[in-house]
Amino acid sequence: MTPPRVIAFDGDDTLWRNEDQFSISQERFRSIIGAHVPLDFAAVNAHLLETERRNLAIYGYGVKSFVLSMIETAITLTEGAIPASDIKILLQLGQQMLALPIELLGNVRETIEELRAGDRVIWLITKGDLFDQESKIARSGLEPLFDRIEIVSEKNEAMYRRLLDQHGVDPAEFLMVGNTLRSDVLPVVTLGARAIHIPYHVTWSHETVEAAVADGHSFLTLNHIGELTAALRQI
Amino acid sequence: MTPPRVIAFDGDDTLWRNEDQFSISQERFRSIIGAHVPLDFAAVNAHLLETERRNLAIYGYGVKSFVLSMIETAITLTEGAIPASDIKILLQLGQQMLALPIELLGNVRETIEELRAGDRVIWLITKGDLFDQESKIARSGLEPLFDRIEIVSEKNEAMYRRLLDQHGVDPAEFLMVGNTLRSDVLPVVTLGARAIHIPYHVTWSHETVEAAVADGHSFLTLNHIGELTAALRQI
Repeated sequence: MTPPRVIAFDGDDTLWRNEDQFSISQERFRSIIGAHVPLDFAAVNAHLLETERRNLAIYGYGVKSFVLSMIETAITLTEGAIPASDIKILLQLGQQMLALPIELLGNVRETIEELRAGDRVIWLITKGDLFDQESKIARSGLEPLFDRIEIVSEKNEAMYRRLLDQHGVDPAEFLMVGNTLRSDVLPVVTLGARAIHIPYHVTWSHETVEAAVADGHSFLTLNHIGELTAALRQI
Repeated sequence: MTPPRVIAFDGDDTLWRNEDQFSISQERFRSIIGAHVPLDFAAVNAHLLETERRNLAIYGYGVKSFVLSMIETAITLTEGAIPASDIKILLQLGQQMLALPIELLGNVRETIEELRAGDRVIWLITKGDLFDQESKIARSGLEPLFDRIEIVSEKNEAMYRRLLDQHGVDPAEFLMVGNTLRSDVLPVVTLGARAIHIPYHVTWSHETVEAAVADGHSFLTLNHIGELTAALRQI
């Protein structure tokens, strides 16, 4: 194997913190619901996740979809008893999430700069709401470090294949780095390219995959992005 | 001037109906609000538009943003008196809008097919929510007719310039066709490319521009897309 020429990074929870904010909002959501109905935290979580999953097909990913699903779940679980003042709090949670400063994970900037200095082509391939992702990329300050930025609605094998074809990149020279097996690792190794998994301490339940699915595929797992350049020297 | 080699179309209200559905939802919104507070239709409209405009910077365009702004406006205008059952109706309005069949405007498919047969390169440049637009494009059945599809968060001169640069298209060989002066015509003619305006019978208030702004720029206005191929023969 030759060293990869094109290295693509996922954004959310690979380069900057994301899921933490969803967790904080969910916690607030559970306490709002808990004031109206005697449901435990796990039950509220399960209902919200079910609504989010059902709505994925019409809303797609992102904060706006999340807020709409929170409002829908709140109305259902309280059987319409939730007051508008609480729904207003849910709207505000979303607006806060969309305007938060972006907190880069450790070693991110240095690592990308080092890779660029080594003549790698650096891409960002991020999934989610177009407006939200563009705003996050701008706030991250990392934009000038990427040779190409792709914001996509779903990260699956077909999307990666289309992207590589479109830009004349052979799977053998492509490496994807990200925190989710489902989106960043498995579809990439399936099409014959390489992937490095850097798990994040929180993963959205929708993105978790069974260990069995990941089994049989070969990819490297690192503790943090600071280990990436050393790992690449060994490939 | 030579005939344009690359012809790009806007999507919403240029190739398929869009704004009508927003108008229908707004009408329903006004009747819901009217049941709670003695505001006339114009006042409700003005409040909703103000909320949408304020939220553009954090939500961007699209149906999800529209629904979130409707809910926010409803809570504000009724001073929190709106019941969850009405908010549920607003959520449902949005979900219906996102799942509606796409209704192509007259002559759209034939016109694009004719242009393709004449060796033009055909692009779609559409603004809005990524997931929503991808879904509409898929439902339109037009996807195979486009050589390139670009979904962008804002249509301004910088975006058009970046797109043309990226694909090695000279402004002199580019023509944009769309229904809004602000997004489809003015930024395009400003950078030295050509544009054709095909007004739609409804335009979102945010997109309207003063005649004075359009004044002094040269572009052709057609009644409907069926006039396009004849117009191009005269360029």
